[in-house]
Amino acid sequence: MKLYRSVGVITRPDTPEIADTLATLVCFLHEQNINVRVDEQCRTEQQTHAFRLPETHFCSKTELAQHCDLIIVLGGDGTFLSAAREVAPYHVPLVGVNLGHLGFLSQVQHEHMISELSRILTGKHLTEECIMLQADVWRESEQIFQGLALNDVVLSRGLAGKMIEFEVFINQNFVYSQRSDGLIVSTPTGSTAYALAAGGAILQSGLRAFTLVPVCPQSMTNRPIVIADESEIEILVTKSGDARLHYDGQSYFDVQTMDRIVLHRYEHTVRVIQPLHYQYYGTLRQKLHWGEQLV
Amino acid sequence: MKLYRSVGVITRPDTPEIADTLATLVCFLHEQNINVRVDEQCRTEQQTHAFRLPETHFCSKTELAQHCDLIIVLGGDGTFLSAAREVAPYHVPLVGVNLGHLGFLSQVQHEHMISELSRILTGKHLTEECIMLQADVWRESEQIFQGLALNDVVLSRGLAGKMIEFEVFINQNFVYSQRSDGLIVSTPTGSTAYALAAGGAILQSGLRAFTLVPVCPQSMTNRPIVIADESEIEILVTKSGDARLHYDGQSYFDVQTMDRIVLHRYEHTVRVIQPLHYQYYGTLRQKLHWGEQLV
Amino acid sequence: MKLYRSVGVITRPDTPEIADTLATLVCFLHEQNINVRVDEQCRTEQQTHAFRLPETHFCSKTELAQHCDLIIVLGGDGTFLSAAREVAPYHVPLVGVNLGHLGFLSQVQHEHMISELSRILTGKHLTEECIMLQADVWRESEQIFQGLALNDVVLSRGLAGKMIEFEVFINQNFVYSQRSDGLIVSTPTGSTAYALAAGGAILQSGLRAFTLVPVCPQSMTNRPIVIADESEIEILVTKSGDARLHYDGQSYFDVQTMDRIVLHRYEHTVRVIQPLHYQYYGTLRQKLHWGEQLV
Amino acid sequence: MKLYRSVGVITRPDTPEIADTLATLVCFLHEQNINVRVDEQCRTEQQTHAFRLPETHFCSKTELAQHCDLIIVLGGDGTFLSAAREVAPYHVPLVGVNLGHLGFLSQVQHEHMISELSRILTGKHLTEECIMLQADVWRESEQIFQGLALNDVVLSRGLAGKMIEFEVFINQNFVYSQRSDGLIVSTPTGSTAYALAAGGAILQSGLRAFTLVPVCPQSMTNRPIVIADESEIEILVTKSGDARLHYDGQSYFDVQTMDRIVLHRYEHTVRVIQPLHYQYYGTLRQKLHWGEQLV
Repeated sequence: MKLYRSVGVITRPDTPEIADTLATLVCFLHEQNINVRVDEQCRTEQQTHAFRLPETHFCSKTELAQHCDLIIVLGGDGTFLSAAREVAPYHVPLVGVNLGHLGFLSQVQHEHMISELSRILTGKHLTEECIMLQADVWRESEQIFQGLALNDVVLSRGLAGKMIEFEVFINQNFVYSQRSDGLIVSTPTGSTAYALAAGGAILQSGLRAFTLVPVCPQSMTNRPIVIADESEIEILVTKSGDARLHYDGQSYFDVQTMDRIVLHRYEHTVRVIQPLHYQYYGTLRQKLHWGEQLV
Repeated sequence: MKLYRSVGVITRPDTPEIADTLATLVCFLHEQNINVRVDEQCRTEQQTHAFRLPETHFCSKTELAQHCDLIIVLGGDGTFLSAAREVAPYHVPLVGVNLGHLGFLSQVQHEHMISELSRILTGKHLTEECIMLQADVWRESEQIFQGLALNDVVLSRGLAGKMIEFEVFINQNFVYSQRSDGLIVSTPTGSTAYALAAGGAILQSGLRAFTLVPVCPQSMTNRPIVIADESEIEILVTKSGDARLHYDGQSYFDVQTMDRIVLHRYEHTVRVIQPLHYQYYGTLRQKLHWGEQLV
Repeated sequence: MKLYRSVGVITRPDTPEIADTLATLVCFLHEQNINVRVDEQCRTEQQTHAFRLPETHFCSKTELAQHCDLIIVLGGDGTFLSAAREVAPYHVPLVGVNLGHLGFLSQVQHEHMISELSRILTGKHLTEECIMLQADVWRESEQIFQGLALNDVVLSRGLAGKMIEFEVFINQNFVYSQRSDGLIVSTPTGSTAYALAAGGAILQSGLRAFTLVPVCPQSMTNRPIVIADESEIEILVTKSGDARLHYDGQSYFDVQTMDRIVLHRYEHTVRVIQPLHYQYYGTLRQKLHWGEQLV
Repeated sequence: MKLYRSVGVITRPDTPEIADTLATLVCFLHEQNINVRVDEQCRTEQQTHAFRLPETHFCSKTELAQHCDLIIVLGGDGTFLSAAREVAPYHVPLVGVNLGHLGFLSQVQHEHMISELSRILTGKHLTEECIMLQADVWRESEQIFQGLALNDVVLSRGLAGKMIEFEVFINQNFVYSQRSDGLIVSTPTGSTAYALAAGGAILQSGLRAFTLVPVCPQSMTNRPIVIADESEIEILVTKSGDARLHYDGQSYFDVQTMDRIVLHRYEHTVRVIQPLHYQYYGTLRQKLHWGEQLV
């Protein structure tokens, strides 16, 4: 018995070499009598790169999210992040098929795509509920930008190479003023990405918390902080230089001095489907070369 | 109106110079018609150091915890930690009067003791519920030691100066094997103590989480991890050397190769009473020389 | 007896509030029968900001360096770095008067300027020889840029917020390929500046060494390396994104993929004049809040 | 033509399984008409473990060092460190054959021992001159201990689990007072060992410098410092607890409060023989999983 009857497919853009995989996937889903929708961006790519899919129903990502009860993401963690932000309001589960390196979000390996998906379609899988961040930018009394992130929201200096300055508040309580290259606000999902490179701690997948990780702070005592996910974080930019606010490193907004960035947990979570054999710590061990069990 | 009618007093041991403060405190409490009990350890010190308290009801810490509805701790964070572990099962609130440096737990300053306590006794105060760790040591199928910690449980190499080796499991899932000077398992309260010195992140007071912080791990990718406080942590000691398990750095147990240390949240929390003006981030700023607000 | 008979003065640009200090300084030097030259940039500022110096011989920084046997820098460490790079080829000693915060290079405090300089002019001072870095950029077989740094040369990602990729060679030996926000190559002088914020070690003033400090490297094992100052360092940019090469954070060059950056010790050192009471470790203690001696 | 006519052999103690390798080595050296001496400790092991070497001239390590012009160390970096300290005064070169993991000092791999040594004996090899540390302990006006280290001298807290306190002076200049788990003073050779685990920078092999690396300092600004190897370092222990001074983690001395530890470069270097194919950075890459060259 299929658990999922209507499945959407989103693929990594500008990657014509996945045409065969995509065709295989669509055929397989048709064979299963599953109602298939493919991200319309693929139609454009099909034309540009002159490949052909079996007769396919193309539609926008939003339509996909509205009508499907599962979305398959072909690509890597980058494609997954981007898809997750777009379909976030519809709470439809996503499963990632990685076409290259093992990812935390894309745990289905390319070579085992069909067999893994066969199991997953019948409900034999794990489900992780991943929290997201919403970050709004306020200028004077007006909200001028809003965005979501599954990994992290990063305030970061730009080309000028000068440190920026800002003040941080948690639940309206002043925390510190800081001079640094920037500040990362990360979910548990993002804690193994840029936040880790900047010296943050790993937040176990599923922990209801965010972490604030300064990037090269002038004061060495400005250490990473972990806070509950119901906290509201406010960053008042006191000297912006050419600072930019990045969402998952994929979209951005250029901030100015005295802009306020207000961050909080997004109202929906992302439901990430993982194969039954998925092991969070196993993935960490593999990626971080951690020591294996002796016996 | 007093909220607290029966108050216990615990003091830093071997500190005869607090006799005057203690006498002042006991007199003050008597004047307030509060039923006062003093830790019987003070009686011994009174005799040894030939100071005299006003007529005082001495009793054990356990009796204190059973009969009082508030315990005042005269000393510093060290005295507070020790008192908290002893009275933990009785869930009586504690308030710390620091006699020296500002502490996170002992926020009532010596010079303002009477005025602060006057307010606190009428219920004008903040209350923090701090989680504790319980760590049991198992040898083969027998539990051979058990202890509590409000700050941290630390597995640590000893005099021999050789790294120790162990495997870590979270909720029965293998995390990593590690070669290091040791491993700190810390509560949010302890995250600003030894765990911070070892490179851990700060866990905001009240966060329902623990952190595992390796001490000088041979593998640089063995980074601090933050996990939910309902997790069970198991450490299997595979090469103990002269390793010791420390509870709040105040009590300990010497472990052997193949001992298993099982850690989880203790069933009770510690209720820490703080003055109304207490600011967690203000204390952090002061202790860590963090940047102040500009305007 | 004056040791220095011909003195140049360089000031922080765009700082009209130093007019009085500058006038005081020039008068003092005239009284001492010292031949004074002032950076011609001051003449412009004099006109713009309508202040007046006593009759003054203005000339370019190069002329200053050629004709003076001491240069006084009014400003802070930033002004000092900029002056040092410009006069580097002439090996004339520099002394820094700081107008604000204590600096490592600008140790003469504003309030004691005249008394300190009186001593210094008679040769009562310390002299530090500080090594500089030269960094040349090569594109194919052509050298397309060249610059000097007293603090550091920093290859850094820009606004796009994507990590850059490069390979590092020391004396033609391949060291590693790295994916990161950038790489700092620092002198001992710069080791207490940006390199420290990025996790580098402090190189004692005067050490004949450079340090390479990765900025947020994706691989946590890419740790800072310290090498002898006769080493040649080559950075091959394999994925530049919008990377920029910064010299002391004050001048820059935009690099492209496959550009090679070749760094080595500059042939001249900077001679930094310090007051007799200057203590390198004292300055570090003050700036880093290090623990003081107990007795 | 042999460069070395008289060769000594030192082996890892308590390792009967190297008997065959040792026998092979001794036979090979005899065949080359090389005068062979074996560490007399092997004779004891031969008896204990009932293995037999070809007729062999046994003598003490000191005699070995006095009469040989090359010493072969069978074991790993640990055996090498121990041998190096013992033969240091005689300036005889050492070559390490590693029986297990690749080491920085023991670069000849077991499987290629004979072919590698054939080349080395004719002078086809690299030679590194490695500086050593001498650390003397003074109590009041008396020197009460003295020792050498090729890797590091480590002042370290012991079983009690309490931080120790000490003051550090470099060339008689006060640097800081520190509260920590200890302090590592490391050579470049040791900078990839314990010092690296404690957060130190890598000092390129051959750099004329030492590094001071605090272990879990209470103050986060107590960062590693790199100093010239002609510096004299003094550590005044102000609160020793159960502190111990470790030499290469292999010998030690228990220090007391007010003991002074004086460290400086040992008058002799260790001459480490490496195969021609030895690459310092290649070994680092392998051990630290650094990124390889792309093309």
